Order: sequence, then C-alpha cells, then structure tokens
Amino acid sequence: MKFKIKNLRFLAGKPVCMIHETTAKKLSLHIANRVSIMNKKGRKIISVVDTATGILKPDEIAISDEILEILALKNNDIVDVTIADRPDSIEFIKKKLKGETLSKQEITQIIYDIANNALTEVEVAFFISAVYVNEMNLSETKYLIEAMVNSGNHIKLKGKIVDKHCCGGIAGNRTTPIVVSICAEAGLIMPKTSSRAITSAAGTADVIETIAKVDFSIKEIKNIIKKTNACFVWGGALGLAPVDDKIIKIEKVANIDSTAQLLASILSKKISVGSKYILIDIPFGKSAKVTRIHAELLKQKFLRLGKEFNLKIAVVLTDGSEPIGNGIGPVLEIKDVIKVLKQKQGPKDLEDKSLLLAGKILELAGKSRPGEGLKLARSILYSGKAFKKFVQIIHAQKGKIKELKESDIFYNVVSEKNSRIKHLDNIFVNKLARHAGCPEDKLAGVYLHKKKNDSVKKGDVILTIYAVTKEKLEYAKKYYKENRKKMIEFY
Amino acid sequence: MKFKIKNLRFLAGKPVCMIHETTAKKLSLHIANRVSIMNKKGRKIISVVDTATGILKPDEIAISDEILEILALKNNDIVDVTIADRPDSIEFIKKKLKGETLSKQEITQIIYDIANNALTEVEVAFFISAVYVNEMNLSETKYLIEAMVNSGNHIKLKGKIVDKHCCGGIAGNRTTPIVVSICAEAGLIMPKTSSRAITSAAGTADVIETIAKVDFSIKEIKNIIKKTNACFVWGGALGLAPVDDKIIKIEKVANIDSTAQLLASILSKKISVGSKYILIDIPFGKSAKVTRIHAELLKQKFLRLGKEFNLKIAVVLTDGSEPIGNGIGPVLEIKDVIKVLKQKQGPKDLEDKSLLLAGKILELAGKSRPGEGLKLARSILYSGKAFKKFVQIIHAQKGKIKELKESDIFYNVVSEKNSRIKHLDNIFVNKLARHAGCPEDKLAGVYLHKKKNDSVKKGDVILTIYAVTKEKLEYAKKYYKENRKKMIEFY
Repeated sequence: MKFKIKNLRFLAGKPVCMIHETTAKKLSLHIANRVSIMNKKGRKIISVVDTATGILKPDEIAISDEILEILALKNNDIVDVTIADRPDSIEFIKKKLKGETLSKQEITQIIYDIANNALTEVEVAFFISAVYVNEMNLSETKYLIEAMVNSGNHIKLKGKIVDKHCCGGIAGNRTTPIVVSICAEAGLIMPKTSSRAITSAAGTADVIETIAKVDFSIKEIKNIIKKTNACFVWGGALGLAPVDDKIIKIEKVANIDSTAQLLASILSKKISVGSKYILIDIPFGKSAKVTRIHAELLKQKFLRLGKEFNLKIAVVLTDGSEPIGNGIGPVLEIKDVIKVLKQKQGPKDLEDKSLLLAGKILELAGKSRPGEGLKLARSILYSGKAFKKFVQIIHAQKGKIKELKESDIFYNVVSEKNSRIKHLDNIFVNKLARHAGCPEDKLAGVYLHKKKNDSVKKGDVILTIYAVTKEKLEYAKKYYKENRKKMIEFY
Repeated sequence: MKFKIKNLRFLAGKPVCMIHETTAKKLSLHIANRVSIMNKKGRKIISVVDTATGILKPDEIAISDEILEILALKNNDIVDVTIADRPDSIEFIKKKLKGETLSKQEITQIIYDIANNALTEVEVAFFISAVYVNEMNLSETKYLIEAMVNSGNHIKLKGKIVDKHCCGGIAGNRTTPIVVSICAEAGLIMPKTSSRAITSAAGTADVIETIAKVDFSIKEIKNIIKKTNACFVWGGALGLAPVDDKIIKIEKVANIDSTAQLLASILSKKISVGSKYILIDIPFGKSAKVTRIHAELLKQKFLRLGKEFNLKIAVVLTDGSEPIGNGIGPVLEIKDVIKVLKQKQGPKDLEDKSLLLAGKILELAGKSRPGEGLKLARSILYSGKAFKKFVQIIHAQKGKIKELKESDIFYNVVSEKNSRIKHLDNIFVNKLARHAGCPEDKLAGVYLHKKKNDSVKKGDVILTIYAVTKEKLEYAKKYYKENRKKMIEFY
C-alpha cells in the first residue's frame, strides 16, 4: 500500500513508523508488527509499527529520522509499505538458546537480518543472551566474524597496517591515542576504529570526540591516514561491521558481553580495515573483567582465530587490578592523554603502559628488533614527536588541542582518617562514573587524586565526582555512599 | 521538570514518551533513557524517551495512550518528569544469565520492576532468556509465583473453586469452554482466566472473544460468576499476575517459554482467583510440546508446588501427537466448540477429551465418586444442560451464540494421490495458522477436513487455509509449500 510521508521529525533510537489506526486495521497490522518501507528507488528498510490517530491521516505515514535518512525521504514523498515476513533467523536464535550449535548459513542469516533491521531489539537481546549463556565454539565464532565483516564496508590501505585493542574493564586506561601517535610517527599505518563504551565509562571514540570529530566517511578517513598515517575514529559511523554496533547497544542494557561476541567485535573491525599486525591487551586481576586463567584462555582463542584469518596477532596480559591514569570519563581522560603526550605531569602509570604497548607493536611489525620496541617508543614520546603526530591527527580530524574545563557541578570525596589507599576498585569506580552520566555526558566522570599505596590525611580529597546536572550528581553521590567501602579500600 | 501534555494519540504497545530535542539536551536525557512521569495525584509511571522536534514545543511532552490511560491525563495537563534510576534488578538478571540462583528478594524485585515498567522490553527479554537457559529451581519458582501473585489483583469467591489448564502445543484442542460449561452446570465455581496464545494459533481468550467479551473488571466477573458459576475471561485485563502477560508478550517474539515461567504463569493465575482444585492437562508425544518423560517431570513439579501452596492438584498426561478438533484459529475453533455443545456433528476427539477432563475435575472436587466422573460429565453434555450453561455464560459476558462465517479468502490443500493420512503435525499446522494471521486475525486459521487414519482420494481437500488479506494468504501458502512434507504424512 502507498503512503505519503508526514515528517514529524522524531528519533526513537531505532527505525519506527506510525500509521493511522484505521489503516492498520485495514491492513490487519498490529502494534509492534514489522513492515517493509520502500522508497521510489526500490531501497527498503524494515520498521516496527506504532499507531496514531491524533496526528496522521489514514494515507499518511510518519517515520523516524533514522529511516528518513537511510531512504533519503522528505515530507509528502510516497513510499510503498508491505508486511514484513517473520524472519527465519528467529528460529536459529531459539536453536542457540536451546544450546545447539549453529551452522555457517544460520549465523550468516542472523547477522544479515540484524544488519537489515529485520530483527527487533528484543530478538537481538535473545540472540545476545543465547550466545552469552551457551557460548560459541571456534567455528561459530569464525562464521560470526566473517558474517560481520561481509555485512559491512571495508577500507583498503597501503603499507604495514597495525592495530591494537584493549579488552577493557579498567577505569581510565586511555592508552590508545598515545600508542597510535607513537606508532604512526614510526611509520606504521594505524587506522584505529573504536566503538563507544560498553561497560566502561568511556571508549576511545567518546574521548577523542571531546576535541575532534570521530565521525567520518571512508573517503575522508583515507585522506586523514594519507596525511598522518593514522586516525582515531568511531567505527559505527563507518559501516564497518555495523552489526557489531547494534549488538553492543543492546548488550549495554544489561552490561554483558560474551566471549564470542567480544572476539567477533574486535576482529571484525580489524579485518574490515585490513590490519595485519594486531596487538591485544587483556588486563586481568582483582576488579578487572577477567582472571589470569580466563585471560590465558582468551589469549589462546585470539591466537587460533589469528591463524584462521592469516593475521599476526600478539597478546599481552597486563595487570588490571587498579585504574590507570587519573581521569575517568571522556573529558577527564583526554586531559590525562594530552599531559602524557606533552610530557607535562601526566599520570606515570598511563605513560608506562602506553610505552609498553607501543613497543610491542613496533616489534610485531618489524620496526624494531625483539626486546628493543620499548626503547624506540620511549624515544619517540620523549622527543615530543608523538605529541606532534597527535596534534597532526587531531587537526586532520577537524579538531584542535584545547584547554578543557571540568564541569562546575562536582562533589569531593574526602578521607575521614589518616591512612593509605590499599585498592581502588575498577568496577565500582567505572560504575560511579556511569552513574554520574558517562559516557553520554562528556564532562561527567571521576578524577582520582589518590591511587593505590598513596598516603592520605584526614580531609584530603581522594576523588572528585563530576556531573552535568545536579540531579545526576545526586544520583552518583547516592551510588558512592552506598558502595564506598567496596570502591576504596584502606590499609 | 514540569511538562504540558500534548495528546498526539499514539500507541506503541508499551509506555513511550516524546520530548523536544532541546529539552532532552538540557535535561541531559538521551534516546531510550527512562523517565518517571508523575501526575498531580502523585501516581508515577516509568517510560522510555524518544525525541521530536517537528510536533512539540520545548515545554511539551507527548505520551503514548498506554500512559495517558494509566495516569488519567488529558491535553494540556501538567506532569512532573524526572530521570528514572537504573533499576537494581538489571544486576539480578545478569546474575541469572550467569547461571546463579536468585534469592527471594531478588526475584521479588525483578517482578516488581517489570510490574512497574521500570524494566524495558529488552531487559525483560534478557530475564526470559536467563530463566529459559539456566532454569529455576523449586524455591525460585515458588518465589516467582508469590511475586507474581503479590504484584496483582485477587478475586475472592465463595464455593468450591476449580480450575483447569492445558500446557498446550496441540493444534485446535479447545476443550476449555466445554469443560467449564459441564463443571459449572454440576455446581462447581470455575473462574476461568486465560492468556492469549503463546506458541499456538489461539488461546481460549482469543476464541471466546469471537462471540463474547472477555475483558471485564473484577466486579463484573464476580457478577458473571454469581449468575452462572463460571466465566471465560482474559486474565490480562484483570490485573491478576499482570507481569505474566508482559512476559508472555515478549516470549511470543521468540516462541519460547521456560518451565519455571510456565509453572508460574499457570499457578499464579489460579492462586489469584482462589482456586483450590486444579486439573492440569499435559499433552505429550510426537509434535506435542513435551515428550512423555518431560511430561512426567513437569507433573512432579506441579504436584510439589501444589503442596507448597496448599492446593489439590491433579495432573493428566494425554496423547498430544495429533491436532484435536477440526478448526485451528479463533473463529474456526469456536465453531467446533458449539457443535460439540449442541451435539451437532462436533469433532468426536474434541468431545472425548473434554469429557475426560471434566470427569476428572468432578472427581477431584468431590462431585462424583472416583471413576464415575466421566459418566456424570457425559450425562450433563448429552442432556443439553452443558450447552444451556454455555449460552448462559456467553450472555452474561455480553455475547451471543451466532452463526460465524469463514473468511472468503482461503486456499484448499488437495491430495495429490489416493492414500491414507498417517500424521498431521501440530507444530507445522500451528505455524501454518500463525502464518495465516492467527491469533490476531480472528477469521484466520486452518480447517482440517481429514485427520489421522482418514483415507483420501486424489483431489480431496485435506485442509483449508483461511486469511483476512490476500497478502497473508500468500504468506501462509508459501509456508505450506515449503513445509508440506513435514506437515502432512501419508501411509
């Protein structure tokens, strides 16, 4: 049936359309049914249906801005609407929920249907749960990666293409901008794409976005890399393995990520940009995401998948028991990064870890002999060349190095006694930053004035919570007060 | 912050509100965040946020009809909107996803949050998956039932209150209206509440709705029962264990139901209406939902939970390998039911099963001696008193017995050879009816002209598919053609 677009300009975070109740009845369409909306050029998108009577005529359809954009539609345009089939992949998801192993064809179909919006968020949640609970074997994971790569765009680059990834969970720990600057300066090609934060307070894309754009077309990225050897961009905007971003958005709801999805998320992005030399950092230990044993298992899986896909992968297991750096939250983290790059009183732990990782990549890609990467990385950072490279990349990404002010809505947590810090807990510190509004609120977060083994006197500020509204600050304070003993341990 | 209601009259199947993009930014609210909306009387409801610019002023809020109704709001009313906390129960859901056992307090909180809309559909999907995959032990199931009962309304009735439930999966099999009519005629009180279809083509509520209302207030139900001893109503409209209906709606998406959820769904409704004598029918066998062994396990769980809640429960395991009755789909089933009650060429298998179940209930509640229930049930049906009772109940539910016409959009499946039917598959026949539009489209469904062991000649109509639009008929035909060999087996 043909409908006329009524542009109400609304955003729902997913494709939604509204049609008149009477028309819905006529078409025997029910709320939350799926329809396929086709523009004049024959391009289709699947959408969930709401009904409305107050704002629409029977021949009108209101569609969310997400669809308008994809189908390039404007007011009064005509679209053709048909009932969408119930996708077969729902049965495959159910099969996985039952604990069965999926075939290549089944996994490919699920990913295809997620990519084409044929599965609703609830259905994707069932898929995520199934994979989380029943896990995927190596073959299934391989098919998942292939399907994700095939469902998206690719970037073709020349040169020695390297990449790094941290499995996350550590508060702060913003090594990527530093590592990329060092490696790019050393002549390696590093097309760094990042996703938004999953369970942490910020992802690299969230952090870079405070001073530069992270949202570019593939053509623009190629230009940035041509000029600078590297970039720090948001993968979601590029359409590289776009399904990964859809899945992550829903995973965030329950803060879960399965091993297979973790592997697929990381490797699909790397393969899509043609990376050949990849360093994986797996932090382990108290309050990290994984234990040492789990980290070892994960390492083996990375190495096996590396062989399957003909990649040179190195995996380092790092101490992830405490936060790294002082700032946690987009703006607070970029400030730490710039301090390290400028060599102006940046957090020592952040610098050390960045140098370690950069050194490993330099070795992996043959820029230095085994055992000498750290030395080379250090010389690039200390010479100021890494900072120059960073500035160059930020400029290429239409940004500039600027003095960022913290939010003036904040709360200082002060010590109630003279003591020494025994442990700052990543999980609770991250959650505190999230309660304060991270990663959506760029200025929100936590600044750690004291770290493990630091002495504190009564009245010393241990950490500061920043938020962008008083309401959110209160919410974070409440969270802090309920969890303070697990967040900060004293000797 | 205060907002003025702008009534756009839209329905989204769940509480959704829209605020202006600028206001959302000011409040630091993001798409799909949750807010709490409070009316002047202090009643609150939690809602997901979309943003709009084309239809709203910055101080206006548009809310879906679901919320308007609950909060009794109209155009230009003022509401207070605050950011809703991330519910703790998300952590409990994650715990269950990890395979841990939940405490009474944790289960109670999850159910409370579902009842109060504090959990989104995606979060409920994670809960459903967790329970589906990791199951619940007897204590957890008990807490789930208690929480469901406590979150809803109750009906207090006098007399010997009986109930029945069929665990489903069998195409057709609409015994309930017949059983209820017989038991009510025998003097038992039978406040039958049903949910909508989960995985089958129709639930009892969907079927009765073709000739009477099923949507009544508790006060009205009490009156119906006072007049007639019984009712057939939709549980969801009564607010008895309302969480169950929310869960079922999301389970339907993937056609899954866990054992714990099945037990809780059934028993919470029975406990809420004060039933003391409950007959559970578990069909087993080829193409039924469960095998004989699984049926036995389920039986034990029902009996153990019966003891926990001080109920007299009897469980019968019945042959569920073939469809029962001829019609599958709301209208097609009610026609079979009326034929049996009128004793006018109704399907024999449907009559036999209904008499068996009614007889068991008469025995369980002491209306006949053990072994003599079937005889009593038969005499009530054959005397025409059961039909009179049925008519009385339908009248009390503002309906009437009428001649219902089948849809004139249909397709006849004819035999291509002379043979004999070996098996009709419940799963594929049910799915065929669903592809045709069941249960939402009342006239849609499948009519079986032939059953197991019937001889067919080339050209004989085996079954007819009914739909309400040509599009849906084509969709069902396509499904039939792809699955015909598994749907109908010949000797």
